[in-house]
Amino acid sequence: MKKSQAYIAENKERFLKELFEIIAVPSISALSEHKPDMITCATKIAEQLISSGADKAEVMPTDGNPVVYGEKIIDPELPTVLVYAHYDVMPVEPLELWKSDPFKAEVRDGKIWARGADDDKGQGFMHIKAFEAMVKSDELTCNVKFMIEGEEEIGSPNLGKWCEENKEMLKSDIILISDTSMISLETPSITTGLRGLSYMEVTVTGPSHDLHSGLFGGAVANPINVLSKMIASLTDDNGKITIPGFYSDVVDLTPIERRSIAETPFSEKEYKKSLDIVDIVGEEGYSTLERTGTRPALDVNGIWGGHTGEGSKTVIASTAHAKISMRLVPNQDNKVIGEMFKKHFLNIAPKGVKVNVEYHHGGLPYVSPTAMHAYKAAEKAIKATFGKTPLPFYSGGSIPIVSTFETILGVKSILLGFGLGSDAIHSPNENFPLANFYKGIETIPYFYKYFAQKG
Amino acid sequence: MKKSQAYIAENKERFLKELFEIIAVPSISALSEHKPDMITCATKIAEQLISSGADKAEVMPTDGNPVVYGEKIIDPELPTVLVYAHYDVMPVEPLELWKSDPFKAEVRDGKIWARGADDDKGQGFMHIKAFEAMVKSDELTCNVKFMIEGEEEIGSPNLGKWCEENKEMLKSDIILISDTSMISLETPSITTGLRGLSYMEVTVTGPSHDLHSGLFGGAVANPINVLSKMIASLTDDNGKITIPGFYSDVVDLTPIERRSIAETPFSEKEYKKSLDIVDIVGEEGYSTLERTGTRPALDVNGIWGGHTGEGSKTVIASTAHAKISMRLVPNQDNKVIGEMFKKHFLNIAPKGVKVNVEYHHGGLPYVSPTAMHAYKAAEKAIKATFGKTPLPFYSGGSIPIVSTFETILGVKSILLGFGLGSDAIHSPNENFPLANFYKGIETIPYFYKYFAQKG
Repeated sequence: MKKSQAYIAENKERFLKELFEIIAVPSISALSEHKPDMITCATKIAEQLISSGADKAEVMPTDGNPVVYGEKIIDPELPTVLVYAHYDVMPVEPLELWKSDPFKAEVRDGKIWARGADDDKGQGFMHIKAFEAMVKSDELTCNVKFMIEGEEEIGSPNLGKWCEENKEMLKSDIILISDTSMISLETPSITTGLRGLSYMEVTVTGPSHDLHSGLFGGAVANPINVLSKMIASLTDDNGKITIPGFYSDVVDLTPIERRSIAETPFSEKEYKKSLDIVDIVGEEGYSTLERTGTRPALDVNGIWGGHTGEGSKTVIASTAHAKISMRLVPNQDNKVIGEMFKKHFLNIAPKGVKVNVEYHHGGLPYVSPTAMHAYKAAEKAIKATFGKTPLPFYSGGSIPIVSTFETILGVKSILLGFGLGSDAIHSPNENFPLANFYKGIETIPYFYKYFAQKG
Repeated sequence: MKKSQAYIAENKERFLKELFEIIAVPSISALSEHKPDMITCATKIAEQLISSGADKAEVMPTDGNPVVYGEKIIDPELPTVLVYAHYDVMPVEPLELWKSDPFKAEVRDGKIWARGADDDKGQGFMHIKAFEAMVKSDELTCNVKFMIEGEEEIGSPNLGKWCEENKEMLKSDIILISDTSMISLETPSITTGLRGLSYMEVTVTGPSHDLHSGLFGGAVANPINVLSKMIASLTDDNGKITIPGFYSDVVDLTPIERRSIAETPFSEKEYKKSLDIVDIVGEEGYSTLERTGTRPALDVNGIWGGHTGEGSKTVIASTAHAKISMRLVPNQDNKVIGEMFKKHFLNIAPKGVKVNVEYHHGGLPYVSPTAMHAYKAAEKAIKATFGKTPLPFYSGGSIPIVSTFETILGVKSILLGFGLGSDAIHSPNENFPLANFYKGIETIPYFYKYFAQKG
């Protein structure tokens, strides 16, 4: 891979410039006003695939945002790597907290600052540039297919169907994904577990119209007070989720697994400092890495109702709303949990209010076995560029589509992520260190090399 | 008062047209962008006072919005009535729920529909037009002073100081206010009790920036979950407020008071129907009229945090906010309660979050004794136009300034309100029946007549 590495070193500046052009398109999948930007972004990615050496690249329609598909088949006898990434990004509000324009990427303090700098434009683009380096250096050892979607941040509602319809085209030996983090550049890691997700939206309705809180306060159920009580009751004082049956399918960690997690470098002091929190809080009896990587969680992602503007308004709101999501661990089923939540939430509704519960989206948890040939190839690739064998790591995040790939395409995924916990993905001031961006591009060709050396 | 009544009958249409012009000014005191509208509205009211017969009328500055002062002194020997009203109105959001423009008043189904139609432009304007009728008919029996302020809906922060500075000018025998409701046109009533108010704003801060709920969920305190738990704990399952000492100063109702309230006509069925609620909910052991009129209450008036827009965002918000107000009953002190709330709320904050509590504004409860000469005059005035003796009524609303008037000016107030519970004040589609508007104008001159007949 010497020629590829030299090529990467020579073209670093251009790679960055090209990434900034992709970042400049505000492809926010959650907001319908950005529909045209999704097409623009997909088209730019397809052009990139072609200019980087793909035989063909196509913007393929779905019922939602299009999927970009590209491929280079060098020899049907060789193994095929299917790269998955997403070109859509999260909303950027609250905008006032950003130190620079989220869609005008800039480099400060050795980092790229922009929405999508890491998740997943930065990490996705590493694969296109690593591919270019291998093609232009004549060092490509596998066939390559790309599927880059535009709806990951809203739960990939159309990708399953698209995979189903394009099964033959997507035939491959491994799916390679960079949409996760590693512990640090000093302690590289490969994500071996992802949590599942059930994302719900609830509405509590009291009186049919807003009321004067003086004239009616104390005599009618206030939807915000009621919603607060309902949310409060979903977790107990030990940080356990109280929905009946919620933990039934959760498999306890083995002592070996717990020991392995306990050995993962983790500084509680650094963790608290980076978040500016006085104390960590979570499920009784588990460490922070266990809580985020191996235990389910319930978080309110948004809440609103009544007067939220300036000043005071003495009102009892007619409705109160919340977005509530649950992270799930292996063996839990997002649809079963969604139904369980709905039944329970309707069940605990007090008299005097009406409650509506909607299932937004979700996905199954995923485990990537460390015994796989592809895992070993990833391990060796990281060893080659980082000089250290990476640790297996349970991430708390979810990429719901990963388990769907396994179900529909029958192919396992390798989560070769180069992000850091401090990248502030989904938040204001998302960033991606330049070192990680280039290290990713350098590491990926080694994965192809070792993966082609079939055990 | 025959000539006055005839004058009112002849000028009905014009009175309504003039009211609509006052309503057209969006004088929302809670929103600073409406500052210029406050001046415009105050000026229009001063012009109205002059054209209606006042000797003088002035727009007097304060540190906030101006107070309109006007007077007509016919004989220093006669009793003086000080009319209080307010020209500011509540915000209008959510705008999409209004069936017509809140600032373009229109008459439909026998009602005036607009922000301020009742509270308090409609009710305040009745006094100016009743005054005009008495002046033009030469039937004015008292000296009259008007103080019409522009900050009632934000807690009258500057009126106390203004009263203090203008004590001499405001000398009077009674303060007359129409800013409350009666039970119905068939069952007229006079408000004899008002609840006090302590309005708070709280902020819960967790991590210093928004976090990805997958990567961090389960390991850090989520400010929205925490705020929900804190709010939930403020009231118990019996509808009692749990803040230590909260009820210490509350005086229990006497059996006679309870009997009098129990005799007030009230249909639970109609009440539930008008609010479209399945059940009434409140403090155990009290009736609906007792709950709203004589017992304290705690309501969340607004809550917000995290992703409140379209779609889903898997975020743990850095902060969560709520506006929480408490209605107070005689003997409770709004400042003491505000301090009590703050201490308690900080006290129940769990580890892992920072909590901030601010006191927005408030006021003391008020009782208007039914034995007063002025109360008897109001009773007779209503008897004259409604044909029925009004019932005394405990309202749940607050006009914090009323107790301030008593403290600073040493003058009691009569709450001669002509609104209805169905007027949707503070809500979309605020309205005021034409019948009530005209009945109010007709009744007020009789109050002056009977009040002048000093016992």
